[in-house]
Amino acid sequence: MAQQSRAVVLLSGGLDSATVLAIARAAGRETYALSFRYGQRHAVELDCARQVAATLGARRHVTLDIDLRAFGGSALTADIEVPRGADPAREGIPVTYVPARNTIFLSFALAWAEVLEAPEIWIGVNALDYSGYPDCRPEFIASFEQTARLATRIGVESGTGVRIEAPLIALSKAEIITRGLALGVDYAITSSCYDPSPEGRPCGGCDSCQLRARGFAAAGLADPLLRRFGASAQEHAP
Amino acid sequence: MAQQSRAVVLLSGGLDSATVLAIARAAGRETYALSFRYGQRHAVELDCARQVAATLGARRHVTLDIDLRAFGGSALTADIEVPRGADPAREGIPVTYVPARNTIFLSFALAWAEVLEAPEIWIGVNALDYSGYPDCRPEFIASFEQTARLATRIGVESGTGVRIEAPLIALSKAEIITRGLALGVDYAITSSCYDPSPEGRPCGGCDSCQLRARGFAAAGLADPLLRRFGASAQEHAP
Repeated sequence: MAQQSRAVVLLSGGLDSATVLAIARAAGRETYALSFRYGQRHAVELDCARQVAATLGARRHVTLDIDLRAFGGSALTADIEVPRGADPAREGIPVTYVPARNTIFLSFALAWAEVLEAPEIWIGVNALDYSGYPDCRPEFIASFEQTARLATRIGVESGTGVRIEAPLIALSKAEIITRGLALGVDYAITSSCYDPSPEGRPCGGCDSCQLRARGFAAAGLADPLLRRFGASAQEHAP
Repeated sequence: MAQQSRAVVLLSGGLDSATVLAIARAAGRETYALSFRYGQRHAVELDCARQVAATLGARRHVTLDIDLRAFGGSALTADIEVPRGADPAREGIPVTYVPARNTIFLSFALAWAEVLEAPEIWIGVNALDYSGYPDCRPEFIASFEQTARLATRIGVESGTGVRIEAPLIALSKAEIITRGLALGVDYAITSSCYDPSPEGRPCGGCDSCQLRARGFAAAGLADPLLRRFGASAQEHAP
């Protein structure tokens, strides 16, 4: 029953989704990694996704082109400046929120899962460090799973549909890092920064860099990505 | 409050979505039409969508490229033959079903609605003539609306989110046609066929051609699209 162990894994090239891919693999899944070129200003993360998929033994890795810039509306896809040095735990939804992004990503994952007859989609959303994004909350994930059951042939015919696995949802960043290291994730080939240099050097000041730095600090570990770029990136880290 | 009257309208170039655009306009909405080049074998319907959007006064019309062929799995996007002459009312989900298509289309519409601060998305799904597609059922639409409320900034901040309007959901094809004609829809510039000629001549035998022909027959009207192509297309119609 090899079919039953298939899983589509959303892979951004960041720390969280790399960890999810490692967890899915450790759970015995045959993984199908899915990334998106969605008009984000940094292509670095897609290079990272490719390396992560190869390193962690994904059966296939597909990168889809979808032009979210046609709509604009986010600092990650439009000409709005990425904020640096802000408190990532502040109230409200940050400008780096991309409208409906996880709904779109999960919808494509659902299409592929249905074609593969894969009963699971894995996604690296995280509710504790979620940085104010509505589509990273557990209630959104549960609702999407219900919609997916009603939307698809697999849902109509099996009655259960496609499960959405979000193994990081209740973990802290430090717990995610510890878990990933135990499973052999090489975080030096992941990228978390919202606005890295073309070579992939993190800015150190955006929400995502701050959350990553605090995670490594809380785990009592050095970030191997910063080691790759020497000390300069760490200068900006809190 | 011009903002309140904005609506994103999913526009395929077919008969149903053209009617929806006309209904939204008649209801006073400022319409933003959204079409997809999703790897369908026929580009004819996108030409139709452009003409329909222009004729019915859409404020903007965006056509997004999304490559559903990367996944395959449907007669509309992969190398599977479109069935002709079958009974469209037969049991089961037809091979022309495109996995998760309406979920994907609604997700993009949601992203645009959020950027536009449009409180509504209009879609031409139809449960009576729905031809076996799970993602045309009212329970799917209701569930997507709930997911959309949880997914978005507009949902978190307004508590209501984006409404999904499906005005055709309980109408017969004949009722849709009658309604559209009363609102000035020119069905000669719409395309319903799953496998038309490059010039847009309908095959007459696929499920969609049959449902369209029965709709015009039940309404006691001639299909102006067939008039455009003379009698030959009608030869195949039931």
